[in-house]
Amino acid sequence: MKKVGIIKGGQLGRMLIQAGIDYGISAHVLEPDAEAPCRDLCDRFVVGDLLDEETVYQFGRSVDVLTFEFEHVNLRALERLEAEGKAVHPGSRVMAIAGDKGRQKEFFMQNGIPTADFMLITGRSGLERADLSFPCVQKTRTAGYDGRGVQALESPRDIPRAWDVPSVIERKIDFEKEISVIVARDRFGSTASYTPAEMSAYPGQYLLDRLFYPARIPAALSERASAIARELAVKLDLVGVLAVEMFVTRSGEVLVNEIAPRAHNTGHQTIESSVTSQYAQQIRCVLGLPLGSVELVRPSVMINLIGEPGFEGPVKYVGIDEVLRTEGVHLHLYGKTLTRPYRKMGHITITGHNIQSAEEKSKWVQSQLKVTS
Amino acid sequence: MKKVGIIKGGQLGRMLIQAGIDYGISAHVLEPDAEAPCRDLCDRFVVGDLLDEETVYQFGRSVDVLTFEFEHVNLRALERLEAEGKAVHPGSRVMAIAGDKGRQKEFFMQNGIPTADFMLITGRSGLERADLSFPCVQKTRTAGYDGRGVQALESPRDIPRAWDVPSVIERKIDFEKEISVIVARDRFGSTASYTPAEMSAYPGQYLLDRLFYPARIPAALSERASAIARELAVKLDLVGVLAVEMFVTRSGEVLVNEIAPRAHNTGHQTIESSVTSQYAQQIRCVLGLPLGSVELVRPSVMINLIGEPGFEGPVKYVGIDEVLRTEGVHLHLYGKTLTRPYRKMGHITITGHNIQSAEEKSKWVQSQLKVTS
Repeated sequence: MKKVGIIKGGQLGRMLIQAGIDYGISAHVLEPDAEAPCRDLCDRFVVGDLLDEETVYQFGRSVDVLTFEFEHVNLRALERLEAEGKAVHPGSRVMAIAGDKGRQKEFFMQNGIPTADFMLITGRSGLERADLSFPCVQKTRTAGYDGRGVQALESPRDIPRAWDVPSVIERKIDFEKEISVIVARDRFGSTASYTPAEMSAYPGQYLLDRLFYPARIPAALSERASAIARELAVKLDLVGVLAVEMFVTRSGEVLVNEIAPRAHNTGHQTIESSVTSQYAQQIRCVLGLPLGSVELVRPSVMINLIGEPGFEGPVKYVGIDEVLRTEGVHLHLYGKTLTRPYRKMGHITITGHNIQSAEEKSKWVQSQLKVTS
Repeated sequence: MKKVGIIKGGQLGRMLIQAGIDYGISAHVLEPDAEAPCRDLCDRFVVGDLLDEETVYQFGRSVDVLTFEFEHVNLRALERLEAEGKAVHPGSRVMAIAGDKGRQKEFFMQNGIPTADFMLITGRSGLERADLSFPCVQKTRTAGYDGRGVQALESPRDIPRAWDVPSVIERKIDFEKEISVIVARDRFGSTASYTPAEMSAYPGQYLLDRLFYPARIPAALSERASAIARELAVKLDLVGVLAVEMFVTRSGEVLVNEIAPRAHNTGHQTIESSVTSQYAQQIRCVLGLPLGSVELVRPSVMINLIGEPGFEGPVKYVGIDEVLRTEGVHLHLYGKTLTRPYRKMGHITITGHNIQSAEEKSKWVQSQLKVTS
């Protein structure tokens, strides 16, 4: 029984363990929050700081293989573990690149991966000096996710409210669709990419509203996006799973936005919609097993269950009975007892014989279900 | 977060917990073996005797709802819990009937459920006195499963080797196929039955070799079998999941063989082949949620991974890499570290676009994979 160490114990780790049960793994988790979603599902739950070198190093030493559900982790510890021959998947190089949006952009550029024009700044003063073309987007280099750490700068008047931290400044893309491709690469060097998913954001926000799977884009674009994702996996020498978020522009270009070196929110639906889920795929890669099939089984729409604004405290799922009565509704709760505004409490995947029927049901589900306290 | 108490913590409990994760349950397990498959997956793992009234009663008092992955449990404790208003699903009456093959047969007879002719004996002397027609089958009334506690008596000369325990003596059915229907009934009284699965036994043994889903039988027979299963669920006033094993005779009759009041070995394939798995279905019933869809997603063949005769000790899965490279192979290991001859160590579900392609792959998988030590 292999001891699989998972860095962080949130909902992605929870679904990773859930998939790992079938492979007979012994799950060990390092996580700063004692109440995190993995707390009762693993053989060993270690509360500790992911940025502390010694904590990560000692945790890594105690397991057979180390993997991740989160990219902000002490890199020096990973390098030491690798130097000692420990299996770390993905490796420290991938984690270093993925954990810094500036390094991501440099990697894309150096490897001929299409991406929006950008510059790197160390703080707000970099903006004042630069010859910028507006509108542009500021992304903090580290610690941003789910729309946090991203803001649009529409004109020079917005410079004073720019964050004064190391950032990527990027041409604002007038995109038609935002898509995501999950790609996996095993220890033998084989790659497999899932068909692209289409991300639909809440109006005016960067937070994912609904995810359509497969994306409603022409087959040629879908193939191009998948090819880019596989190329990235090869050039990173990835072992594991990588989410590649991309823009499809109005002129039909595919531009890589950012990557995450792990199972991802935009791949939840692979649990029901694909022969092998992204979680099972990550487990296979980490254990040195061959990749599973990424064939589409059923189209779906995925909805995040987000804490309703104005509610904080012990969670209630209003309308859940009616929703579960609906054909093809798959509930995934993350085991969080407390809700707060915009907190991700779970997700629902709605499968259908086609994407239209799943979409119709998803609208109804969204109208019925509220996460309150 | 509801505390769901599960009686016994074997592989069925393991897959029940795995499904329950998505519903945010807190899983509590009562199990006699400290090394059982659920040991690391639940919030609380209580080692105790399932036939001891006080043990079961105290365990039941500590949870919000009690359910089962095994039917041999102290019934008096269940009755006391019910009298105090505790939710026990299925209830003590169903558990009493299902836990005794004699009571099962009487229930079938009293309720007009078609079943093979039978008599009940208290021991071997009952056979010597009776006017038997051979061949017949002896089934011990309690504690038999997986072919244990079942033997054929071909002629009067076999009477001396009959077991001297309370038994059902049944006319030996010249069946064409053995099938199983999983049926679920929720707290609102709705029922849903999965399409029948076809059981193929090892030649000369009662142990399941391969399971074909759906069963390769005419639609009319399939509907008749499903109707019988739903009728049983209603007449038992079931809340939960029930497996109904049946014979299809050469003359096209459907006869109920036996029932199990829980998720069952003949329903493993519903994880991949159905919109809602039998495990998720049991969780929904137990939590008072509505039933999920039982629609077929993909046909499949299921194989149990059985410890190879001649091997005992720490388990090895020989050929697993090659098998996992095969399209549509879904591995489920039960987390047992030690193998022994005929021990159930896991199962594999092989999905295909049709049952023929799944069957071909299943033969190859069986030829490649060995459970040794």
